[in-house]
Amino acid sequence: MAPPTEALTPERILEATEEVLRRHGVAKATVVDVARALGVSHGTVYRHFRTKAALREAVTKRWLDRTTAVLADVTSGSEEPAAKLRHWLAALFDAKRHKAGDDPELFDTYTVLTNENSAAVDAHIGDLTGQLTAILQEGVERGVFEVGDLAATARAVFESTAHFHDPVYAPQWSRPDAPAAFDAVTSLVLRGLTPR
Amino acid sequence: MAPPTEALTPERILEATEEVLRRHGVAKATVVDVARALGVSHGTVYRHFRTKAALREAVTKRWLDRTTAVLADVTSGSEEPAAKLRHWLAALFDAKRHKAGDDPELFDTYTVLTNENSAAVDAHIGDLTGQLTAILQEGVERGVFEVGDLAATARAVFESTAHFHDPVYAPQWSRPDAPAAFDAVTSLVLRGLTPR
Repeated sequence: MAPPTEALTPERILEATEEVLRRHGVAKATVVDVARALGVSHGTVYRHFRTKAALREAVTKRWLDRTTAVLADVTSGSEEPAAKLRHWLAALFDAKRHKAGDDPELFDTYTVLTNENSAAVDAHIGDLTGQLTAILQEGVERGVFEVGDLAATARAVFESTAHFHDPVYAPQWSRPDAPAAFDAVTSLVLRGLTPR
Repeated sequence: MAPPTEALTPERILEATEEVLRRHGVAKATVVDVARALGVSHGTVYRHFRTKAALREAVTKRWLDRTTAVLADVTSGSEEPAAKLRHWLAALFDAKRHKAGDDPELFDTYTVLTNENSAAVDAHIGDLTGQLTAILQEGVERGVFEVGDLAATARAVFESTAHFHDPVYAPQWSRPDAPAAFDAVTSLVLRGLTPR
């Protein structure tokens, strides 16, 4: 049997960290718990993540990156730009709603962690508005969007749809009128991008 | 000298309640403190507000109604509908930003109270989206807005501008780029209402 450190990748440590967070909650989870779950010493974990704060930041980034990856697929797809933007916003809403609804305790844990790791959140928002900028640019090139400042408008699209991705609104996502509210805001935003 | 109960209106009690909240914070403020500030017995206060919860709800409503009144003046004004809508959104942002920036402790107190009094908040949102509906209707009548469902669109305008009125975003309102972000979202929304 290979020694347990053999295949100890950062990804395996982060998987174990998420599992420990799920089980113990953010206040009680320790690096020792993570090491124990992996069958290694806590020193071994610290060789990959130099502090508990670095480990927490990395696991937060991994959680946010999962959503980014789903949306990157939409961004690089072949849909017509207006359909693609609607799809992108719906996929973001869907990803967040699932994270919140399928495992509420883990979602709450990550809400605490994102509040502690604003640099990871800012980078995540940068990734997402970068994707939005690419979609807007494509629409401008094809003549289906009319946009002054691409980056500022991408940010405005992101902020104007916050009701459907910012975790502070998570309690409203399961309301029966949430899909209609999403449609109303998305349609208003899309109309705002259409040339006249 | 008239006895202190002579002019004891609900408004005077609510003024004193706000002052007590400002001084003691929401956790420590009591009805006895309010009565003492007015020079009356707590029984006298209870004759106007039957429970401490009713008093807290009334003072929350009064705080929210101050913003509603400012916006009602904009709504009933004679500006052209697009200018009026921009003015209304700017006045809302301005009112919230001042409440948050001028007296942060009282703002935090009211944030706690609004979280406790969701019925008062829902009524407030109903008042504000009612004003938005009136402005949209005016724009449709004058042919400067194109709107399908007036009430749903009013709600969408309100939700899409949440970054600039929802207290959860208050920490961002003093950032140097906040006015530019507000302009970008407002312009996007206004374009979304313009007929093509």
